[in-house]
Amino acid sequence: MPVVSVCFSPAQYSLFAEPDTIVVVVDVLRATSAITTAFYHGVKSIIPVATIEEAIEYKNNGLLVAAERDGEVLPGFEIGNSPFCYMGNKVKDKVIVITTTNGTKAINVAKLNAHQVVIGSFLNLNYLATYLAQKQKNVLVLCAGWKDKFNLEDTLFAGALAQILTAKYQYITECDSAIASIHLYQLANNNLYQFLKNSSHRKRLQKLNLEDDIKYCLTLDKCPVIPYLNGIELVKLNDLCE
Amino acid sequence: MPVVSVCFSPAQYSLFAEPDTIVVVVDVLRATSAITTAFYHGVKSIIPVATIEEAIEYKNNGLLVAAERDGEVLPGFEIGNSPFCYMGNKVKDKVIVITTTNGTKAINVAKLNAHQVVIGSFLNLNYLATYLAQKQKNVLVLCAGWKDKFNLEDTLFAGALAQILTAKYQYITECDSAIASIHLYQLANNNLYQFLKNSSHRKRLQKLNLEDDIKYCLTLDKCPVIPYLNGIELVKLNDLCE
Repeated sequence: MPVVSVCFSPAQYSLFAEPDTIVVVVDVLRATSAITTAFYHGVKSIIPVATIEEAIEYKNNGLLVAAERDGEVLPGFEIGNSPFCYMGNKVKDKVIVITTTNGTKAINVAKLNAHQVVIGSFLNLNYLATYLAQKQKNVLVLCAGWKDKFNLEDTLFAGALAQILTAKYQYITECDSAIASIHLYQLANNNLYQFLKNSSHRKRLQKLNLEDDIKYCLTLDKCPVIPYLNGIELVKLNDLCE
Repeated sequence: MPVVSVCFSPAQYSLFAEPDTIVVVVDVLRATSAITTAFYHGVKSIIPVATIEEAIEYKNNGLLVAAERDGEVLPGFEIGNSPFCYMGNKVKDKVIVITTTNGTKAINVAKLNAHQVVIGSFLNLNYLATYLAQKQKNVLVLCAGWKDKFNLEDTLFAGALAQILTAKYQYITECDSAIASIHLYQLANNNLYQFLKNSSHRKRLQKLNLEDDIKYCLTLDKCPVIPYLNGIELVKLNDLCE
């Protein structure tokens, strides 16, 4: 039976990396929620880059570039990682380069050693679970965390996905971080927003008046798309059997 | 108000290390439970060493040396990290050198940058909380984990201690790992043994017939002692006001 595991930090990825595993990268607040939203709204592709220097280089070459650090849009860039900036004509058929505090770093860490890297968020949770169950490969949820530390919101997503895979699709788990994530999700799932009220990143975003972003990012299954990494760019799976 | 934080892995200690913090090192199954037990039974001091090579050197110099890897006593050594080997005349007034898979590594990581390093376990939980509350310094619980990964049993101890400090002694917490630990402890505290039945290390120890060790290590407040690091050796605080 396939195994689902959870890694709480990109800095610990090397302890979990296995070449035959599908890695689900999650940064609920807000990079992977924004990326999921963009593909639902018809973006052509997204190039995740780890550093601001790379982002500037793409910008100088005329591409649309999104850049966020510590919750805010970086000076000189039009958009950061608010999912509301990744909707409609702003993104349709475009190529977007994106760099964020944690999410794009996690994507770049995962691509070094994985069978496939896919993007997870509450917005595509059940659609993603269905896809993974078809594949029947081991799954590792890689939480982007906050500057290499554990965070609650990514852990809740990890718990939600691990619960679906174990309860509905006979995955097993041998890892304490997956067990803990499932427990935490079960505690939180009646009201994710309320559960996260004391979390460090929600407090950080509150200061920036981003409550609407948070509520949107915690919405289940709004965007039935699966972004996956193809070389250096994220593109959309065309159907679940791909 | 003082702050309590939780670090899930020795490999992440550098993200949390602050020089004015008391670091509580915990390895519930079983190193810090064994160490707490030894001081309750009158051991003079314990020298934690990270490597087997150091342990062998001490052994060649005639000291009593305990060595464990992967749950088992290493060949050539008399004792490992079962707390039942740290009781009565076997340890009274002795100096013991100890090396274990995770616990002694965590102690040695913490001593590089902390105001004080103390040893925590369920066996001294409330006694330790009382001591920390007197000190009114920031507290970091450093979980030994399993080979640098998160583990459940150390997290439950972290949650128990963080809950006492926040609920009873007005500590605050700003860290998601402390919040998660408290939630998990609240879920588990009616029956820690049952809660851990699926944990990876309990399964590991089950294979080695160590159920009695596990039950003992999950006993609250059996050993009202506080081992702390003094140079290279652990000694016992003589009273709470020390």
